[in-house]
Amino acid sequence: MSETPAAAKRGIPPKSDFREWYPFIVEAAELVDKRYPIKGMDVWRPYGWKTMRLIDDVTHQEMERTDHGEVNFPLLIPEDLLEKENRLVSLLKTAREKGVDPSELRMEGEPEGFANEVYWIRHAGEAELDKAMFLRPTSETAMYTMFPLWIRSHADLPLKTYQIVNTFRYETKQTRSFIRVREIHFFEAHTAHIDEADATRQIEEDLEIVENLMNELKLPVLVTKRPVWDTFPGAWYTIAIDVVMPDGRTLQVASVHHYRDQWARAFDITYEDASGSQQYVHQTTYGMSERLLGAIVASHGDDRGLVMPPSVAPVQVVVIPIISKGDSSDVISESERITSELKAAGIRVRLDSRDIRPGQKYYDWEIKGVPLRMEIGPRDLANNSVMCVRRTGGKQSHSMDNLVDTVRSELDIVGEEMKQQSSDHFNSRIKTLPAFMVDGTDLIFDQAIEKGMVYEMAFDGNDAEAEMIEKGTDLSFLGDSTEAYKKKVPCAITGKPTTRRVFLAKPY
Amino acid sequence: MSETPAAAKRGIPPKSDFREWYPFIVEAAELVDKRYPIKGMDVWRPYGWKTMRLIDDVTHQEMERTDHGEVNFPLLIPEDLLEKENRLVSLLKTAREKGVDPSELRMEGEPEGFANEVYWIRHAGEAELDKAMFLRPTSETAMYTMFPLWIRSHADLPLKTYQIVNTFRYETKQTRSFIRVREIHFFEAHTAHIDEADATRQIEEDLEIVENLMNELKLPVLVTKRPVWDTFPGAWYTIAIDVVMPDGRTLQVASVHHYRDQWARAFDITYEDASGSQQYVHQTTYGMSERLLGAIVASHGDDRGLVMPPSVAPVQVVVIPIISKGDSSDVISESERITSELKAAGIRVRLDSRDIRPGQKYYDWEIKGVPLRMEIGPRDLANNSVMCVRRTGGKQSHSMDNLVDTVRSELDIVGEEMKQQSSDHFNSRIKTLPAFMVDGTDLIFDQAIEKGMVYEMAFDGNDAEAEMIEKGTDLSFLGDSTEAYKKKVPCAITGKPTTRRVFLAKPY
Repeated sequence: MSETPAAAKRGIPPKSDFREWYPFIVEAAELVDKRYPIKGMDVWRPYGWKTMRLIDDVTHQEMERTDHGEVNFPLLIPEDLLEKENRLVSLLKTAREKGVDPSELRMEGEPEGFANEVYWIRHAGEAELDKAMFLRPTSETAMYTMFPLWIRSHADLPLKTYQIVNTFRYETKQTRSFIRVREIHFFEAHTAHIDEADATRQIEEDLEIVENLMNELKLPVLVTKRPVWDTFPGAWYTIAIDVVMPDGRTLQVASVHHYRDQWARAFDITYEDASGSQQYVHQTTYGMSERLLGAIVASHGDDRGLVMPPSVAPVQVVVIPIISKGDSSDVISESERITSELKAAGIRVRLDSRDIRPGQKYYDWEIKGVPLRMEIGPRDLANNSVMCVRRTGGKQSHSMDNLVDTVRSELDIVGEEMKQQSSDHFNSRIKTLPAFMVDGTDLIFDQAIEKGMVYEMAFDGNDAEAEMIEKGTDLSFLGDSTEAYKKKVPCAITGKPTTRRVFLAKPY
Repeated sequence: MSETPAAAKRGIPPKSDFREWYPFIVEAAELVDKRYPIKGMDVWRPYGWKTMRLIDDVTHQEMERTDHGEVNFPLLIPEDLLEKENRLVSLLKTAREKGVDPSELRMEGEPEGFANEVYWIRHAGEAELDKAMFLRPTSETAMYTMFPLWIRSHADLPLKTYQIVNTFRYETKQTRSFIRVREIHFFEAHTAHIDEADATRQIEEDLEIVENLMNELKLPVLVTKRPVWDTFPGAWYTIAIDVVMPDGRTLQVASVHHYRDQWARAFDITYEDASGSQQYVHQTTYGMSERLLGAIVASHGDDRGLVMPPSVAPVQVVVIPIISKGDSSDVISESERITSELKAAGIRVRLDSRDIRPGQKYYDWEIKGVPLRMEIGPRDLANNSVMCVRRTGGKQSHSMDNLVDTVRSELDIVGEEMKQQSSDHFNSRIKTLPAFMVDGTDLIFDQAIEKGMVYEMAFDGNDAEAEMIEKGTDLSFLGDSTEAYKKKVPCAITGKPTTRRVFLAKPY
């Protein structure tokens, strides 16, 4: 029995047609249901929600390891709190335009901000509210209203908090499950420190957490310091983490921000230092979202469906009894015994005892990306063995003895294969930008720019030159890689030697 | 060093002054911060949120044991979906008034419902929305819009789903942390069944889950079938679970509802039965909220602070090194070793190595209700022993050997003592209603009705008689106990023999 024709029969588009494959597979694998009557707000089904919660569990573990406390702030933010934030954004914009240090400017004038991205509540019951409120798009404003109450002296620092909550953005662009939605399953860490150097150490810790997490999810990533024009409002600098999707476009799945004392000045967050004088704290944030799941779906899936990283697979092993026409009670009872044994060892295992053909079961669990399938028939039973089939390819018969160890090792192999495959894809999508000549404001390339590629180059030019390159390539600057060139290389545009290694891509 | 004076010095009100004690302790123990600038929306601090998440974990385990799938629905509900729900509520009201079966009526006329309890969104960004939306106060409407898409045939039933989400009620009454809030941390299970009998079996399973959960939380409860006038809108009947608070008032912490096919008719949720014809499903719901934490705080706390049930205590054991003036490195290293040993065994343990006096540490962890404190000084070290102090009273020296077993057994003892104490309080608050005579519409009692009591009585009267008793006692009917009298008893008002056992109380 072959599964691929069955898949085709059920209408899974080939993954090479990514624009069709992705929306099809998120529903076919029962991650979400998109038929809820609000655009960009999907219903999470049990399989999808369980996966997301397992991803969150990895995050929780990392937060616990690094002594972050989990808080949970109200969803609603009063409009008047927004003014401080808007003023801060205005001030930073002015400082950048004038090329001065933000601390030299005073916050005044008309605030501007993200008012056009939020959902407003102005009515409750039959009443019009005295004070309008909005649904959090992120929680700086809400949190930094409370931080001055929690931070008194240097002994209260560092303050390391995080929360996993739903946030809201009034998206006007086309929505896409997990990737661009209006209600976002969101992670945000917010920290406060005695000084810039300690906040910088937090950024380093955050990047280490990102590395651990991406290793669990088998996702190779680009880590870049965003250009100034793409820095988060209110941040001194932003480091973003991008996945390279199957179509070669990049998807930002996480970002960390060093705020210096800019927000502290806006929200008056100070502490008493050892000498008794008041100092502004330095702050950082670290954000991630359900895009992590979108990246898993996109990066690891294939023509037959999802492929789930073992660490976050809701079902790591499915046990399928192969029942022949004769007596099958031994096969069933042995399948049940194995399932109990694996379950007791903490492995997420499911026994599929439905009264349908094995081929149909294979199809169902392949589309859901279960890493390991175990088949048990009368012949396996006679041999005291079980057939293990890896979702990443390959099958092997194993002895029933030491089954827990066998399963753990098979899951490790699946994880390693996923890592290898996604690294291969990642590496195949990154090229050095071909040499070019500048003709007026046009660029003339030695070789054609390929679609679906991420390009790297040595760059030490100015903003105007960056813009020219963006136009000439039809790509965007992701920013400076955190892994600079080890030796100086001539800048692609000025020829000046530099170690600055810049990535260009088409982002989602 | 005595702790009670310290507590008094810090201003913990005595628990006998419950109205002062409760709001003080939820902040002093750092469960929540009430200073967020929206009434009825507290900030969950790490200690409070961790406790809530541990309560949720017990719920998740029970849901997994009973094969419920966890979903997550959007927060926002389009206004037009509400019409079906409002019409249903109107219809049921009419049916009750006319004394007819709801299925005999057609849904028509002006809808009425809970429009005055919800927060409305009519604007996003700068735009006025075409379709108004509201924040879910509960999820029937959102879910039952999707159920018809998920239920096709009897093979899809029972459908057992649940979610843990934030819900919103525009409370106009006085708010109180965990007990009456505007953003509610909420649990809701929604199930669909082939017929009324199978839905009834679900109600029985729900009550078994409630029993398991309340056993973990050491909360004795009243389980009553609510009177018709207090039945959840849209329900055939409601069974509610109440805790008796320290002031003798009752707090509803959970409720389960049998919907029969009433919602299915409103939302057109049908399935094809074995014979090929379409049938309406029968539905149930089961709701709980952060009130569980409110009940824990209120029921178990004492003059020194919280007392946390070991199953949901964020810190089950605190290890405190007792350092004398000489060399303390052995005490410290042994404290660290013990902490690691307990942690490795899955016990939630914290080492308090702060450079402050032990008395201050005792105070801090007592207010947070940590079930077990372990003190280790030079003398304990010399004796290969450790001093265990239970939050519920009593201390005992134990050998360092088999420490994990010792701690587990000590935590069990704390749990048993909490159960005993809360049962004693519960039993002391329930009395049989004194005999009375009816004089016109007044009741003349043999003995005075005490404040702060729950009364039980045999009752087989009608609604008018129930209302007369409510007025005469200044109490409300909670409803019929699910544990009826074993033998018939004369009804308190009619004298007719009945097994109906009714509770009267002052609810929160």
